[in-house]
Formats: sequence, C-alpha cells, structure tokens
Amino acid sequence: MTDTGSSKGAPKDDVAELARRRGYLGQAFEIYGAAAGFYDYGPLGAGLKRRVENKWRDFYMREGFYEIETTSVVPRSVFEASGHLESFTDPTVLCTRCKNFFRVAEDLDVGKKCPDCGGMLEAAGEINLMFQTRIGVPKAGSEESTKSEAYLRPETAQGIFLNFQRLLRFNRDKLPFGIIQIGKAYRNEISPRQSLIRLREFTLAEVEVFVAPRDKNSHPEFDAVADRVLQLLPASSNTNYEEKSVGEAVRSGIMANEYLGYHIAKVDEFLEGLGIPHAKLRFRQHHRDEMAHYATDCWDAEFLSDRYGWMEIVGVADRGDYDLKAHASSSNTDMSVRTEQGKIIPHVIEPSYGMDRIFYALLESAYYKEQVGKENRQVLKLKSELAPIKAAVFPLLNRAELKEKAREVFQNLRDASIFVEYDGSGSIGRRYRRQDEIGTPYCITIDYETLEDDAVTIRERDTMKQVRVPIAEVEKVLA
Amino acid sequence: MTDTGSSKGAPKDDVAELARRRGYLGQAFEIYGAAAGFYDYGPLGAGLKRRVENKWRDFYMREGFYEIETTSVVPRSVFEASGHLESFTDPTVLCTRCKNFFRVAEDLDVGKKCPDCGGMLEAAGEINLMFQTRIGVPKAGSEESTKSEAYLRPETAQGIFLNFQRLLRFNRDKLPFGIIQIGKAYRNEISPRQSLIRLREFTLAEVEVFVAPRDKNSHPEFDAVADRVLQLLPASSNTNYEEKSVGEAVRSGIMANEYLGYHIAKVDEFLEGLGIPHAKLRFRQHHRDEMAHYATDCWDAEFLSDRYGWMEIVGVADRGDYDLKAHASSSNTDMSVRTEQGKIIPHVIEPSYGMDRIFYALLESAYYKEQVGKENRQVLKLKSELAPIKAAVFPLLNRAELKEKAREVFQNLRDASIFVEYDGSGSIGRRYRRQDEIGTPYCITIDYETLEDDAVTIRERDTMKQVRVPIAEVEKVLA
Repeated sequence: MTDTGSSKGAPKDDVAELARRRGYLGQAFEIYGAAAGFYDYGPLGAGLKRRVENKWRDFYMREGFYEIETTSVVPRSVFEASGHLESFTDPTVLCTRCKNFFRVAEDLDVGKKCPDCGGMLEAAGEINLMFQTRIGVPKAGSEESTKSEAYLRPETAQGIFLNFQRLLRFNRDKLPFGIIQIGKAYRNEISPRQSLIRLREFTLAEVEVFVAPRDKNSHPEFDAVADRVLQLLPASSNTNYEEKSVGEAVRSGIMANEYLGYHIAKVDEFLEGLGIPHAKLRFRQHHRDEMAHYATDCWDAEFLSDRYGWMEIVGVADRGDYDLKAHASSSNTDMSVRTEQGKIIPHVIEPSYGMDRIFYALLESAYYKEQVGKENRQVLKLKSELAPIKAAVFPLLNRAELKEKAREVFQNLRDASIFVEYDGSGSIGRRYRRQDEIGTPYCITIDYETLEDDAVTIRERDTMKQVRVPIAEVEKVLA
Repeated sequence: MTDTGSSKGAPKDDVAELARRRGYLGQAFEIYGAAAGFYDYGPLGAGLKRRVENKWRDFYMREGFYEIETTSVVPRSVFEASGHLESFTDPTVLCTRCKNFFRVAEDLDVGKKCPDCGGMLEAAGEINLMFQTRIGVPKAGSEESTKSEAYLRPETAQGIFLNFQRLLRFNRDKLPFGIIQIGKAYRNEISPRQSLIRLREFTLAEVEVFVAPRDKNSHPEFDAVADRVLQLLPASSNTNYEEKSVGEAVRSGIMANEYLGYHIAKVDEFLEGLGIPHAKLRFRQHHRDEMAHYATDCWDAEFLSDRYGWMEIVGVADRGDYDLKAHASSSNTDMSVRTEQGKIIPHVIEPSYGMDRIFYALLESAYYKEQVGKENRQVLKLKSELAPIKAAVFPLLNRAELKEKAREVFQNLRDASIFVEYDGSGSIGRRYRRQDEIGTPYCITIDYETLEDDAVTIRERDTMKQVRVPIAEVEKVLA
C-alpha cells in the first residue's frame, strides 16, 4: 500500500513546495516570524477550499440536512457542561532544564530527552487545549471572574446542540433530522510539530444527526450503501485491515448500527467523489482509551499520505445522548422529544470533517510529475469542478490583435461566471507548465487563425491533447 | 424619507419576531442565559446568509479579484504594527456606584445617570475592543509574556496586508489588483445594547484594492459607473444630503478620486442588486474626528432602518499607504512595488461589508404585511436567487397516492440541487402562509388531476397567482 504514492516518484516535499510557490498555502504572519500551527490560504488555495466546502454542503443538503451558523466564541458554562473544560486535554511532559512543555508522543515521554535542549523530560499532567478569552470588561476594581470567561470552540458541534430545541421545532418536532455546520475551530496545541496537519486554527465541517435510540438500527436508505466496500481496521483487530462491505460490517457487529454504518459509507463516498483514491482510504475504529470523552464509538477515515503516513481526515462518532443530556442537566432545559414510544433523548451520529487535512490530502493525491520529451511536467490533477481556475486564456503571441481577441474571449467567459485567468506573458510552453502546476483543466489559445475562423485551440491538462473549437461553443465544452 | 418603511405599516419588532420564530436568527447560548452581542443563524438564516455571501463573491470575482482566507487568531505584534493595540478603542464612562463601564453615547456621558442603577457616570478613558487570548503554554514557573499574546482580528484586512508580497508575486508584480476575504471578525463591545446590530462576533466581507498612488484618479472602468446617482452626505454638509452622480461627485472633489468613487458605486450596485430599495441607501462621509486611525477618507453606506434609523452597513475607506508602510517598518520587510515611475508603496481602497447588518437590512426591506380577504398575510419578499428555500412541494391532501407523487417531484428537484422543502401537514392555506413568511418564492401543489395529466399547480409568492405547469417543465420554470 505505501507504494501507491511513492510509485509516482514524487519526493515528499514537492507538494508542499508547489503549494507554497503557487499561492495555494502559506505560513501565517511569516513577516513577523510566523507562529506554529497557523496557515493562510492563498488565492488558489482559498478557491479550492471553497469548492470543496460547497460540494460538501451540496452533498449533505441532498440528504435533506439544513445548515446553521453558530458563534466561535462560547462562554465557559457551555464547556463546563460539555465536559471540554475537564477533558479536552493532552498529556504533557516538561523539560526539567529549559522548562518547556511538550505533548506526549512516541519520542517525547518521561525519561526521554528534550528535543530543544536535550534536558530530561518529566511528567507534567494534562493541559487543556482550548484558547481562553473574556467577554466584556470586568467591573472597576474587581477581579476577573469565571463568569466572563469564554473559549474559542474546539468543535462546531456544541453550537448545534445548544440550538437543539429550536431545530427540533423547525423540524416540526420530528426525528430523525440532520444539521450541518462549516466553520473555524481552535485547539491551542502544545508545541505542534507537523504544523501543516496539526493546526491551531482550522476548518471543521460537521454533521449532527439526531435519531431516536431505537431507530439507530434501521436507516431508511441503508440498502443504497450496504454494498460499498471499505478498508476496515476494527479496534478488535491488531494490525491488519480487512475489506468488507458496510452491510457485512453492520451485520457482523463490527459497526454498532445502521446509522453509524450509513454515515461511514457516506464519508467514503464523499471523499472518493473529491478524487481521493479509494485505495488510500481506510476506516480505523478507536480503541476505548483513545476515544473522546463524549463518544461511545468512533471510526476515523484515514488517508495514506506519502509524507505523514496514515492520517485522520474525518471522524465518525456515535455520541449517544451524552451532549443533550449534559446540556439538559446543566442548563435545566428539557431536551427530550415526544415519540410514539414516549419521551426520549435523541442519540447523535456525527461525521466531523477536518477540511484542512482533506485539502492537503487532495493536493497530495492530485500531484504527479512526469517526463515529457526532455522536460519534467508537474501536474495537479484536480477534478475540473474543484480546480480554482477553470481555464486559462492565452494570446499565442504578444500582439495587439491577438491580445484583444483573447481579452474578449476571457471577458465573455468571466461574465458567464466561469472563473478564468488571462495570461499573455512568456512562451506558450511556460504558460502551459504554470497552468498544469496549479491544476487548470483547460488552456484556450487564440492565434492568427482565430481571427479568421473564430475558433480557438483548447488543450486538456491531463492528456495534453489539443482540439479546435468554435468560440461560440467554448462555454459548453468547459461545462 | 423615514416614512418609506413604516408606510408598510410594519410594527418595528415584527421582523425580529418573525426571524426568531421561523428559524432565521436566534440569541446564542440562550439556554445558559445568553450573552449580549452573540447571535446564531438558524437553518433559514444561514441559507440566506450563504447566498448573499456567494453573490458577493461572484460580484467581485467578476472584477477579477481573488479571494484568500487568513487566520482569525493573530499575534500581538501584528496589531502593534497596525495601530489597533493603541487606537482600536472606545471612550467609556464608569458608574461610580455599581462600577460598570459603558461605551460613551448620547445618553451615556459624564454627568448622566447609570442605566443599570441610576448612579453617577464619570469619565473612564479609552478601552481596547479586541478579544485577547494566548498562543501556546508559557514555560513552567514563568510569567506569561507579551510574546504569546494574541488577539481575535477586529477586521479581516490585516491578514491580506500580511500576505501582500505573496499576492503581488501571484499577480506577477503588477498593480493594480484586488483581494477579497469573507470571515469572522470580533469586537469586544462594552455593554452592547441594540445587540442585533452591534455584535461582538460578526462576518465581514472585505475588499482590498492595491493601486499605485498616481493611478488613483484614473480607474479604467470608471465610465461604466459614472452616471450612477447616489444619495450623498459629504462631511462638509451639515444635515442635508444631495443626489449626485458618482461622476459629478468625483469631478467636483466631493469624492477624492476615481478609485474611491468607482468602489462606492460598486457598493451601491451590489446592495441594490440584493433587493435593498435604493431610496433607503445613502453614503455618508466621515468627519475627520470619527475616522478610523488608518483612514484618510471614509464613506459609509447607510441603510434606513425602521427600527434603528440610519445604520452603517458598508464602509468604503481610502487607507492610503498606512498599513503597508506600518508593516514594512515594523517587520522590516520591503512592501514596495517597482513601477514605471520607480519604487512606490501602493495605496489601498477598501470596501468593507458588515454582512450581519446587511442580512438584517435585507429582512427588514423584504418584510411586509397585507390584508388578504379576512386574513393578515406576512411576506418576506426576498429575491428568488436569495431565498433559502426555492420552492415548497405539497400534496393537496394527506392521501398516500398524492404524497407519493409529491415526494417524487420533491426528490427530483432536490436531486437537481434545487433546495426545496416538502410539507404535507395542515391546510393548504396554513402551508402557504408559512412559506410566505419564510420567503419561499414558489409553492408546488400535487392534486388528483396531477395523477392524470402529470401537471402541478405553481403558486407565486408575491402575486399569489397560480399556474398549471407540466412536471417536466417545473425545473425550468423555477430557474
């Protein structure tokens, strides 16, 4: 398996280098010396990210789910109730010499050496990962109280749970229903390494499906996904993963219920639909001791990265009735639903997508390098619908009459809300290379013949094949 | 002017009540007693907000501008350089009795009475409005230093300025170019009242146009906007505003240059395109003493609200070279651009949209109430492209054969990515009323005839007219 990626012969850092050089991604605050765990999306990166988000939205809206948008600053009381204040922590070690803290890892544990100064590491307990802030100004002369304490949300889910009653009413007091949210989340990681995938500020796309406990084992659309074959690594297995259909996994008890199985299958379908190779995806079940405090079962969708190995990109958790019960009791609010069987607290199935990691997985999956004649060609083979620039328009030569015609073609496409770029500088070869590198599926060249026959040459990124197309049909060909 | 809104006879709070009841908007953390200045968007609100954002994106992308996405947690050093640490403040008064601070306002000034306890108010100086947090964990036993201090951004613009060199390179070292960003921004307002429009967490959509200073007075597309007539309230005028075309305003020196004029016109065009009545919009120039510390000129687009009076919804500022110079000097980075005239620091023209206020303005503008027969009808007359639900599908009666057919029509539309709702409960009249209230442009009813002729009744929201349409053509009619 590990060969799939490197067989392309892509050195591990080529993708990151290309992403930086071409305006996909860059370290934040770099002119001030940067800060680990913060990245900015450049013009192309933001374009790709937005398209992935819109595809995601569309995917879940077709399930009949509604989107909401809740705040990222959240008062302390919410996280007291949710358990995050107590349990959203990482175990740490402390260097006895330089006094720095580190998150416990394989190479960073009690008795090992400090990576910064070589000092001895000692156990330092759990440290909470939430960013703290305060709402408002304390009264003059008074100490700041816990009442004004607030945190940046470590997940968007809590905002959905707090709105549960309104959402239930919106759904006319009926279960099941699903709510989605895309937004920033924050984790104040302790000494993050691998900063591209362990971000302190990141985008989550979360789905919370509320379902009556006794209905968890009969999802109305389960048959539609039952035959989907996944690579599974159940907690009971030690190292080997197995190919199994979702239907089989639920029947044999590897997956606890149809709702969980259905949503794991949907995650797989979405990721594959983005263009991530199915062979590079697996689902790994959490062991009891690695599960978040709110989860009764959890499966991670993992992507096999050339650079980072298997990395989590989506988590699918069965949160049971943990959250609604916790908020019902802490806020003294009724979170129950009246069903045919009486009053119940719904259970929650939660697919939670780490959009920045998916972004990285997409770039890595799309990247390849090949020899063409005497030249190396680097390509981002992004799906056309995801590519930040749909087509580039070139005048063949730097001549007024060609430039004018090219501008005209360019403007017409842009007016049709197709995101195109105009590039009139450098040799055609160089312009093709740039567009290949940023993943543009089509290049449109205007030459002297165009002025006579009103047709252009369209060159396709992956095959490099060129076809002659009448200008009037360009829009159709791109779509 | 103030009559325009109330002539509809809409009591001031009807809009807010409808927004709350129908899932457009709700106070955040309400089950924990809420916190002033924080709102959540419900299923319909988020749908409307997303459509406005996408329309905005599309509008500026057609200008050739690229979008980026930068972090909302930003280290202290950035705001030291930008001037926000010193100048992003509000003047306050302090109650000598209850010790609460208040933002200075007309009714809240030195010598006036405390609104909470009736005590005397005294001057209390400037208080900074940024939310503070910290990145990472300080060394064991050490005091927290300013080095780890960070703030939630009060505007998205700084993230764009920090990326200036990369963006210039992306634009092949040429001016002018424009960059856009939509994202959360934060202001830790002191005792906010009018919490729906004075939010502590809000969405900004910002445009930063970088232009060589000597080109500011010749925008290549200025002619296309020069005839647009605006309501202007220049700083030199005391109370009266005047109708003037943008061309006239620039020629007569009321607006400082063509770039500023062009972008003010574009703001007007965008707002009108959303469906905000042109008569309820005006542009008010800031007086010297109300201008932000970075601005050399600033015009607010203001919306005339029935509830709040004239309120700012967009600011268009000429930031000059303030920001790039500040960051160049603080970070010791070259922010200059080589042009034909030599090395220059670009100037920045910035339209900055407050999306939450625009959202509110849209709801208020769209809302009306009318008598139909014996009944009151409340309607949100949202543009069809903005309505969160495009159409509702009803079976005329609660009968299996009608429900089945209605479900089929519903599913086909949803599969075509048209966001439709299914509603099978209550009388047709009640269902129409609900859809009118949430702004759904079309209701599609399936009746017994449908089973024979494969046609449905489509009822239009504003006219309440009904037409019979073959099912095969429904999708086309909705588009």
